[in-house]
Amino acid sequence: MKKVAVVIADLFEDVEYASPANALKAEGHKVITIGHEQGETVIGKQKQTQIKVDKGIDQVKAADFDALFIPGGFSPDILRADQRFVAFAKAFMDDKKPVFAICHGPQLLIAAKAIEGRKATGYTSIKVDMEYAKAIYLDQEVVVDQGQLVTSRTPDDLEAFNRESLKLLKK
Amino acid sequence: MKKVAVVIADLFEDVEYASPANALKAEGHKVITIGHEQGETVIGKQKQTQIKVDKGIDQVKAADFDALFIPGGFSPDILRADQRFVAFAKAFMDDKKPVFAICHGPQLLIAAKAIEGRKATGYTSIKVDMEYAKAIYLDQEVVVDQGQLVTSRTPDDLEAFNRESLKLLKK
Repeated sequence: MKKVAVVIADLFEDVEYASPANALKAEGHKVITIGHEQGETVIGKQKQTQIKVDKGIDQVKAADFDALFIPGGFSPDILRADQRFVAFAKAFMDDKKPVFAICHGPQLLIAAKAIEGRKATGYTSIKVDMEYAKAIYLDQEVVVDQGQLVTSRTPDDLEAFNRESLKLLKK
Repeated sequence: MKKVAVVIADLFEDVEYASPANALKAEGHKVITIGHEQGETVIGKQKQTQIKVDKGIDQVKAADFDALFIPGGFSPDILRADQRFVAFAKAFMDDKKPVFAICHGPQLLIAAKAIEGRKATGYTSIKVDMEYAKAIYLDQEVVVDQGQLVTSRTPDDLEAFNRESLKLLKK
């Protein structure tokens, strides 16, 4: 059983949270949602999902977790406006812990300057940002880089994203 | 009287459309909203503003307009997923016509690779993207570059943004 931190704010892409979170829980992993404030409710872009977040960002440190999951939608851009989330994500990347980012998720890694030289994918609109940020962008359903960073493009890629994310947690 | 194209999609920042649009109209300029499809209704992030767009992107070309205005919010990121909007914005930049971009507006200019070497500002979350995209980011309420590109950071900057945008249209 691994402890997976999920950083999340309003306007996350509903299924990009729900599907991986359910897949992680189904394999016995613990999923801890982290927002700006403990107990705040965040609402998905499609209004299908409300989450009362487990922890505020000030209450956690990367050392408490085995992996980081960044759902997509507009949540990653909201999160990266707050340097505490940027530093939190950077710590997972620096420590080479598994990081799973889908859709706009890599925006938080760009802000952490942690995607330079890394093979990755993401939503089409951020391809240009990822390339300017010196990532090696691959237009694939899932990219696994250095056995550590798992990225996907859209909800259509969730099956591959979940499969590869879970695989890394078995190591 | 100048013709100003406004590119817009859902989740635009309401006041970042409404305030400049009203200021432009008050000076006698014509404001034409352009979305994915003529007649579609786009809704602001704060749900205060609904716009029935005047033209679909396939019905317009940059040559028909004197200036481009890109309101912020999540609209610019939605627009830049569609290469027609990227090409449209690029044409204004290539032709050195006035371009006004606030908040996340510069995301569309990054996608057009049109911000390299330009002095500009934008919302704090996209500072890193602008810098990776080789813009010279200035943390100011308004930046006017080469008498052509006007950028601002947030709704708090609207007074300066409107003032400098209107000034360029007097030339």
